[in-house]
Amino acid sequence: MSRLTGGDPSLLRRINSTVVLRSLCADTTTALTLTELGRATGLSRPTVEGVVEGLIEAGLVAEAPDDPADARISRRGRPARRFRFRSEAGHLLGIELGPHRVAAVLADLTGRLVGSTSRQVDEGASADLRLERARATVADLLRRTDIARDSLRAVGVGTPGIVEADGTVRLGTALPGWTGLALGERLRRSFRCPVLVENDANAGVLAEHWKGAARGVDDVVMVLAGLSPGAGSLIGGRLHRGFGGAAGEIGALHLLGREATPERLLSTTDEPLHPLDEAAVARVFARARGGDEQAGRAMDRFLARLVHDVAALVLALDPELLVVGGWAAGLDGVLDPLRAELERYCLRPPRVALSLLGDTAVATGALRLALDHVHAELFTVESVDAAHTPDPTQRPPALP
Amino acid sequence: MSRLTGGDPSLLRRINSTVVLRSLCADTTTALTLTELGRATGLSRPTVEGVVEGLIEAGLVAEAPDDPADARISRRGRPARRFRFRSEAGHLLGIELGPHRVAAVLADLTGRLVGSTSRQVDEGASADLRLERARATVADLLRRTDIARDSLRAVGVGTPGIVEADGTVRLGTALPGWTGLALGERLRRSFRCPVLVENDANAGVLAEHWKGAARGVDDVVMVLAGLSPGAGSLIGGRLHRGFGGAAGEIGALHLLGREATPERLLSTTDEPLHPLDEAAVARVFARARGGDEQAGRAMDRFLARLVHDVAALVLALDPELLVVGGWAAGLDGVLDPLRAELERYCLRPPRVALSLLGDTAVATGALRLALDHVHAELFTVESVDAAHTPDPTQRPPALP
Repeated sequence: MSRLTGGDPSLLRRINSTVVLRSLCADTTTALTLTELGRATGLSRPTVEGVVEGLIEAGLVAEAPDDPADARISRRGRPARRFRFRSEAGHLLGIELGPHRVAAVLADLTGRLVGSTSRQVDEGASADLRLERARATVADLLRRTDIARDSLRAVGVGTPGIVEADGTVRLGTALPGWTGLALGERLRRSFRCPVLVENDANAGVLAEHWKGAARGVDDVVMVLAGLSPGAGSLIGGRLHRGFGGAAGEIGALHLLGREATPERLLSTTDEPLHPLDEAAVARVFARARGGDEQAGRAMDRFLARLVHDVAALVLALDPELLVVGGWAAGLDGVLDPLRAELERYCLRPPRVALSLLGDTAVATGALRLALDHVHAELFTVESVDAAHTPDPTQRPPALP
Repeated sequence: MSRLTGGDPSLLRRINSTVVLRSLCADTTTALTLTELGRATGLSRPTVEGVVEGLIEAGLVAEAPDDPADARISRRGRPARRFRFRSEAGHLLGIELGPHRVAAVLADLTGRLVGSTSRQVDEGASADLRLERARATVADLLRRTDIARDSLRAVGVGTPGIVEADGTVRLGTALPGWTGLALGERLRRSFRCPVLVENDANAGVLAEHWKGAARGVDDVVMVLAGLSPGAGSLIGGRLHRGFGGAAGEIGALHLLGREATPERLLSTTDEPLHPLDEAAVARVFARARGGDEQAGRAMDRFLARLVHDVAALVLALDPELLVVGGWAAGLDGVLDPLRAELERYCLRPPRVALSLLGDTAVATGALRLALDHVHAELFTVESVDAAHTPDPTQRPPALP
């Protein structure tokens, strides 16, 4: 089988190391002996021993303290050494940069939350001011949790707009000065680790899939139902960004109705609402709930528009589940009409659920991006034998 | 490395066999010697020899006749045996079952076309009649090309509607008696090989990707712009069917505009057109081109609606390329306004191209389905070491 590794001993070591690390991470609450690791991985005892030594040197594994209750100690007379993954070997940060707030969540290498915080930002704040606010928020969080900045292994960021692979915002109308901002580059000055920038709805759907309403559901669309609604999608458990990172930017569909923007639909006067004034929207919704007819009509108009946008997404993608988040999610009366209308117009209506994570969704999804990045580094070995196990859906090697 | 194959010698043989077959298929115009196969695969000469013998027995490989011009013969005194993939070892069929026609294309194991034919069917024909017409069309094609039915290795079928994995039509309003039809099961009675049924727009996009307007483009949406428009999408080169096989069924979006169905939009009288009467549509388009104002307004209404549907798809999916097919594709004046409107409303407008395959797209895509099925059988070995080379985008093994 040397063909599979090309006879490369260092690659073989890397594979073995990955296999051992995965076994230790499979249950981070239990430390394993060398014998147990050998059984779990199928590797010989000397191989396991060598690999574990290497992982200890790299700071990723530590010997666990003796457990006096462990039967293995008394039976054999001397304790069997046990090893654990050092989840504290590094930390991960998830940041939300939104129109009204910046938020940050901090976790260890297994994704376990260590702390979180958020601050208000004025919707009219410049990009510089917003970034400064984010830096201060992160510094505060690190200080309060007593985590050194050097310990950060990856930082994820979620923000409105179309985001390029390098973290530049190609188009971001919701935040002043956002379009064209080299957000990734700017943030990388504050961190010595990789910084991954993602659209906020994309981060949101990752979060709901990880710990929210979409747990265990791999085909899901999450709508951030704000005045400029956006959506993030998982297809087969993977984020669908689109060819240019613009997938799910259904806000533009409003333009097709010319004047039918949410700001106008929700207005109870001749003037449209301010595009970012969520408080004004909440007032209209509250008046509608209180029986105000004019506000009721405005809310109906807005809901019809939202249903239309969401139906477009559902018809294009056919998800198993639709998660509704964003500010509209906290307001009564959105979910039932949405469900009823989707049942009426979609050939196969999806389940509809409210976001479980609410306003922590974007930062949590950003954290998940950072976690995935570090896990990919820790747990992946290049697939040397990919050529021998082709994806059957890919083009075959040769067709005339 | 025995861990990777679990020490299973038959699996190792299968891997080696696959590798050799792939090398022979990489260029079906050139036969290879055992030495050349050894070089291409990294396998030892005795291994290659054993594998090739097995493939000859299986009917997949044949010894190529001596080439008198081959320098290897004269130099060594005796000819080096050369081997080739037997693309004639089996055949593949692609069938379109549409509202107005059934079509069939026949190819060898490399996908090279051997013959094709089509017949008209009345749009009101029953499911039985339509299936009978399909059977007659296939029988005629096999007879004319002198290919035995036993030679068929897989049959692909493209048809309107939402199609379940087993080939049952869950919903198909375009054809009488189609909803609920166990189409796969019915067709399997006529063939002794696998029969794969797929939505027509899905088949269409596979075809355009294979030999049409989307060659080399892996993120593409194809719209079949008929009176009930549907769409098929490739994401990262893979067909996106959706969770319930209903992805791209944007025809239902018309319902949201209540009365704004294409049949009404395109009508120049008070009565809507018949939903399947494409000839009537062509007449309206022709009158519009001739300067008839009423028809011109009808065409404008229809185009605005089509743009809206297509924009919804583009905003949801963000493809690199949009391919327009279906009957509207053959009519002037659709592409330019579509392009202009998409530029106006989409954050990142895709390239827009006409279908290159026209009315052969669906049958060609169905053929491609059959080809992929057979190639997956021939060229894939189960990925025993998948656990060691995880997809970094998948969930990691353990998170608290």
